[in-house]
Amino acid sequence: MIILGIDPGTNIMGYGVIESTGSKIKCLAVGVLDIHNVEDKYLKLKMIFDRVTGLCKSFKPKALAIEAQFYEKNAQSMLKLGRAQGVAIAAAVTFGVKVTEYEPRKIKLAVTGYGNASKDQVSRMLIGMLNLTEVPDKFDATDALAAAVCHHYQLSNPLANVKGGNSWAAFIANNPQRVV
Amino acid sequence: MIILGIDPGTNIMGYGVIESTGSKIKCLAVGVLDIHNVEDKYLKLKMIFDRVTGLCKSFKPKALAIEAQFYEKNAQSMLKLGRAQGVAIAAAVTFGVKVTEYEPRKIKLAVTGYGNASKDQVSRMLIGMLNLTEVPDKFDATDALAAAVCHHYQLSNPLANVKGGNSWAAFIANNPQRVV
Repeated sequence: MIILGIDPGTNIMGYGVIESTGSKIKCLAVGVLDIHNVEDKYLKLKMIFDRVTGLCKSFKPKALAIEAQFYEKNAQSMLKLGRAQGVAIAAAVTFGVKVTEYEPRKIKLAVTGYGNASKDQVSRMLIGMLNLTEVPDKFDATDALAAAVCHHYQLSNPLANVKGGNSWAAFIANNPQRVV
Repeated sequence: MIILGIDPGTNIMGYGVIESTGSKIKCLAVGVLDIHNVEDKYLKLKMIFDRVTGLCKSFKPKALAIEAQFYEKNAQSMLKLGRAQGVAIAAAVTFGVKVTEYEPRKIKLAVTGYGNASKDQVSRMLIGMLNLTEVPDKFDATDALAAAVCHHYQLSNPLANVKGGNSWAAFIANNPQRVV
């Protein structure tokens, strides 16, 4: 199953595509759409739409995992973020892709076993886990990849409650490298 | 020139289509997409996308005028509203439609000459102005139509600063029915 992870933003959108087969995962693509120099805010939205459309056409994902920030920002920032998210979601839904949202700390917990992990820690964990040879220079890319990986864990072991993460099942699912 | 007006919301999206020829306007369509009974929030977004896509295909508008609320709501509501707006904008931009946003009070000022007009006053003014025979029963529909009419005034007289509205040019442009 192909999972597309997206970290939508108004200046940079990170994306990562993984193939999830049983408990195994493989990275198919990871990168960013950098639109911070694009002045026209509607063109920005179109570029997000086009990129997500392109990713759906190229990789035919069944699922979109999206990093969704819920509470931190002010109303004006949330409106802008909502627009970027809405555009990415609309593009995916048009291809029949099922959407799941995860809060940043849930993604961090799933990938590193620690909900307050730094972006750098998330990035390092993914590089090791997925044997990435080309390391993305933007955390937006690894954040998006982390959302996809979080969704993989959620799917491959529904017992693994990445929200709670207190059970052994959750621990094992979230930390497969700790199983010897 | 065809202008599409949209009042996007997470439960009801209003839309109105007008044909603007010089100083004359004609209503081509007005209505709502009622999605308050749709539970899946991603399906809601897809339905907004599909409806705007359908309107663009049917009427081939050159411009989208969107009612955009900027400051009033809390962060969580703004995120949801942003998503609905983003989806509507993405659908239109895909068809090369130029987008302009207007704050509610600017739309009211342009249509009624009074920035704090009630939704009912806006609706009545439009019914008279456009000789509407079938009166929409939702203000979301007339609010969307009002956004399109506001854009028409803005285009037909660029001197008319619907932001300020204090000059005679603005008054005349915003109140053509007052010119004898």
